[in-house]
Amino acid sequence: MNAATDAAMPEWDVAQWFNTDGPLRLADLRGQVVLIHAFQMLCPGCVIHAIPQARKLHELYGDQGVAVVGLHTVFEHHDAMQPHALLAFIHEYRLSFPVGVDAPSGDGQPIPRTMARLGLQGTPTTLVLDRQGRLRLRHFGHVDDLQLGVALGRLLAEPAVAAD
Amino acid sequence: MNAATDAAMPEWDVAQWFNTDGPLRLADLRGQVVLIHAFQMLCPGCVIHAIPQARKLHELYGDQGVAVVGLHTVFEHHDAMQPHALLAFIHEYRLSFPVGVDAPSGDGQPIPRTMARLGLQGTPTTLVLDRQGRLRLRHFGHVDDLQLGVALGRLLAEPAVAAD
Amino acid sequence: MNAATDAAMPEWDVAQWFNTDGPLRLADLRGQVVLIHAFQMLCPGCVIHAIPQARKLHELYGDQGVAVVGLHTVFEHHDAMQPHALLAFIHEYRLSFPVGVDAPSGDGQPIPRTMARLGLQGTPTTLVLDRQGRLRLRHFGHVDDLQLGVALGRLLAEPAVAAD
Amino acid sequence: MNAATDAAMPEWDVAQWFNTDGPLRLADLRGQVVLIHAFQMLCPGCVIHAIPQARKLHELYGDQGVAVVGLHTVFEHHDAMQPHALLAFIHEYRLSFPVGVDAPSGDGQPIPRTMARLGLQGTPTTLVLDRQGRLRLRHFGHVDDLQLGVALGRLLAEPAVAAD
Repeated sequence: MNAATDAAMPEWDVAQWFNTDGPLRLADLRGQVVLIHAFQMLCPGCVIHAIPQARKLHELYGDQGVAVVGLHTVFEHHDAMQPHALLAFIHEYRLSFPVGVDAPSGDGQPIPRTMARLGLQGTPTTLVLDRQGRLRLRHFGHVDDLQLGVALGRLLAEPAVAAD
Repeated sequence: MNAATDAAMPEWDVAQWFNTDGPLRLADLRGQVVLIHAFQMLCPGCVIHAIPQARKLHELYGDQGVAVVGLHTVFEHHDAMQPHALLAFIHEYRLSFPVGVDAPSGDGQPIPRTMARLGLQGTPTTLVLDRQGRLRLRHFGHVDDLQLGVALGRLLAEPAVAAD
Repeated sequence: MNAATDAAMPEWDVAQWFNTDGPLRLADLRGQVVLIHAFQMLCPGCVIHAIPQARKLHELYGDQGVAVVGLHTVFEHHDAMQPHALLAFIHEYRLSFPVGVDAPSGDGQPIPRTMARLGLQGTPTTLVLDRQGRLRLRHFGHVDDLQLGVALGRLLAEPAVAAD
Repeated sequence: MNAATDAAMPEWDVAQWFNTDGPLRLADLRGQVVLIHAFQMLCPGCVIHAIPQARKLHELYGDQGVAVVGLHTVFEHHDAMQPHALLAFIHEYRLSFPVGVDAPSGDGQPIPRTMARLGLQGTPTTLVLDRQGRLRLRHFGHVDDLQLGVALGRLLAEPAVAAD
């Protein structure tokens, strides 16, 4: 896994949310360890490894301090991965955690806004924020379960508020 | 795996082909053992098990008498699995064997024509034809590699022409 | 998998049998396709891949023309893999097919007799005989389930007696 | 995984050590998170799941505060799992972390001393101690990588010395 950066995570720019009651902002998740799973519904590595891992994390730790959020960062085959198709995907893969559609660039560039802002290399990318909202882990590609677990366990043990 | 039926396989009704030079008919494959992989691009069981199995079969035995053919039998989430989306899927999953789009019913029924004609229960379904075009194996769900191999090996050993 | 050799399989030289009513000879299996699994109980590749594959073959095809036979070809760590230890291994791994102990060389050489006669490179090695007792497949290392299945299916389709 | 007990871990009673310079005592590991992997070399669940997990943990975290220790708790097939056989097993499975032989009962009982003292149900059993030597996790059977990782990460984040 890549070295942590410790920088504050910039706000995401989401055009549409699924599995939420309304727009979700990073600030709403403050106090929890947040795992953001940037994916594309037609990316094999996402579907075969990262999506099952995100589901498992949500099932096991969703009520124990880990907030799992999917971010559909479509940067290729845009016509095939529109929100109505994503909705079918979410249904078929039984995803129950919040999934946001990364907002299109609006200027004809293929990379959507949050993906561009973060400089993500591709999908799947796993981002982990600590309880204070700082970006602590960032990994492009497959993340090993044991290593992800150790990283999350360490962050779960940290306090939610910075010591004075 | 389900018992073989031995009936002649009815012709498929395909609206559009990918990875072929033109329309493919069952008769074009006579003399080969044919594995038809009925799938939907958003079906998890297809993507995780059946598609990799079909790819492997095509790579290992595509030039040794086994013709692998994908049949995109969309019976749900039709809007999300149109041919342009299938094309993106074929590209991302690097499928190089022929893939046909099962023709829509045309009368508003969700089940496409070939799927209805064959009475398939869902996806993935594996159909295997012998060298004479008879349907010899039909299985809904995951097919074990070892068992599929034994079935194919037996059929490869059969003559292409009926004995008089 | 390695190319088949087509030579007649030489008789094995077995010091002790487990899971049989008495000594088993190759001639006793004539008419069946025979899979000989040469292994060592402390060989990781044997335990993790080849033993489960042999078990599965025996369960699925043991009464359909495939005779699975284990051959314990101990060529290293002899003290740790004596027959009483093999018996515990057979119990723990629930092997129900015949397992023979390849006879020690008798002259202080580490390679046991059948292994030396066949010139096996190591364990696991898979040997497959056709219904007429000829060695048709020989592979050192992991054999893919799909490929093993195709090879066995082809051999199962062959007649038990040579055509005149 | 089973609930943590928080009790102090009783000292192990080891007859012989492999991969150490001399006898290892729990006190020598104080300050580290300790994962004790109780196994038998002929236990399939140990060999297929638990041994590879212990190896991976040692490789990834052995120099980052996690001490992995194998404990050969032989309670059946004693003749087949003597120390000389264990040495061959350690060599074949390339184990480089310390492995101790749980001391035989000495009174003819099959259960060895440390296993009896801890009341272990069988193998594999995973025990995890915190940096202060308290038993915090205890699980009989397969432990999921993600869950083990989270548990270890939490313990790694704890201080080595109790706060006054």
